[in-house]
Amino acid sequence: MDDVRVIEVKQSVFADNDRKADELRARLREQGTFLLNLMSSPGSGKTTTLRRTVEVLRGEMAIAVMEADIDSDVDARTMAETGVRAIQLHTGGMCHLDAYMTEQGLEGLLAEGGGEPIDLAILENVGNLVCPAEFDTGASANAMILSVPEGDDKPLKYPLMFSICDVVLINKIDALPVFDAFSMERVRENILMRNPNATIIPISAKTGEGVDAWADWLRTRIAEWKIA
Amino acid sequence: MDDVRVIEVKQSVFADNDRKADELRARLREQGTFLLNLMSSPGSGKTTTLRRTVEVLRGEMAIAVMEADIDSDVDARTMAETGVRAIQLHTGGMCHLDAYMTEQGLEGLLAEGGGEPIDLAILENVGNLVCPAEFDTGASANAMILSVPEGDDKPLKYPLMFSICDVVLINKIDALPVFDAFSMERVRENILMRNPNATIIPISAKTGEGVDAWADWLRTRIAEWKIA
Repeated sequence: MDDVRVIEVKQSVFADNDRKADELRARLREQGTFLLNLMSSPGSGKTTTLRRTVEVLRGEMAIAVMEADIDSDVDARTMAETGVRAIQLHTGGMCHLDAYMTEQGLEGLLAEGGGEPIDLAILENVGNLVCPAEFDTGASANAMILSVPEGDDKPLKYPLMFSICDVVLINKIDALPVFDAFSMERVRENILMRNPNATIIPISAKTGEGVDAWADWLRTRIAEWKIA
Repeated sequence: MDDVRVIEVKQSVFADNDRKADELRARLREQGTFLLNLMSSPGSGKTTTLRRTVEVLRGEMAIAVMEADIDSDVDARTMAETGVRAIQLHTGGMCHLDAYMTEQGLEGLLAEGGGEPIDLAILENVGNLVCPAEFDTGASANAMILSVPEGDDKPLKYPLMFSICDVVLINKIDALPVFDAFSMERVRENILMRNPNATIIPISAKTGEGVDAWADWLRTRIAEWKIA
């Protein structure tokens, strides 16, 4: 397999990340590119979920994926195997991406595709429930994954992350019989306490269960965004 | 149950965290307190592992636990139920603890125990594989937990964390049949690539398997530290 494109993204020189994020969001709207920012703890299943998502939606829209990591290109290789445009962003130790870093990634994605337009750009953020929540990337929507083995108390401990996400995927539901202390009812309560507007979708990226519901949410959200 | 003591720790005013950490380490040596800094992703099982550890070692030494969290006091309550001295540190959104914050926690622990000396102080750091690795807390040893559901590729993605830990506990081995893509051999290779001196101990905090081996490591390490 060919090497994937790796971009060493630099930290923002802009003091005002929020302004930069708004600028980027406006430009993406002009270009017709919906940007999804996907966040989670390390090992919650972001890449596997994205593989499944791409399998369902790739016939309907042009999808491209940016994989952020401190080091390694494991995830970008995995995504490139699905045939979609995929690049790796190296953050050089940074624990999150800001709007300026995301912009560099989007430019890399466009270059990778010879300038071909992108309908859905997905940013797989650094695995971390704290720092990524503090920086607006310019995304059209924020999504996060909480996996069953992490426990249903996480919204109590990482309040900001849950409060800024439009949708929370509860992944690894196939492992519920082993993690019998996890209560789907309690996790819903805890999430909605942080964010009453959050959509909650249980999935198993391993078996594919729930992936259609998640793809439907994304489809609807993109359609609404287009006419907004 | 009584409310647990909650301390709002403030970020360091010291530019030089390394110097502060060395000062704290020297003072802890004088006091005969071994400080263990325990780190992991959110939901890897830090608190459950600590409960097990305390059950094994509490008859042999005076143990006290600091639970760092952005918000909530779930973990400190859980630890207080074991009967050991336990306090909650609120980081106010901070993604890690530094030596100055740790010092404030240790002072709180001493106050909580009416000044009674502590043989083993344990700091449960914020759940995060990135930021806590960058700040020396003044600990006598660094430990981390990687749980099976997170995957065996994490040392490739979070290199600094694995390189600074003296010991890596592989937790949730009871879930290995469900997470059959996880290879114990591969995770060992990946960890030792980052840190050839790391001790690797597979455990299940749920069933108790491997906890004795971990307690032995800690006992030996404390004994060596005392005569060093």
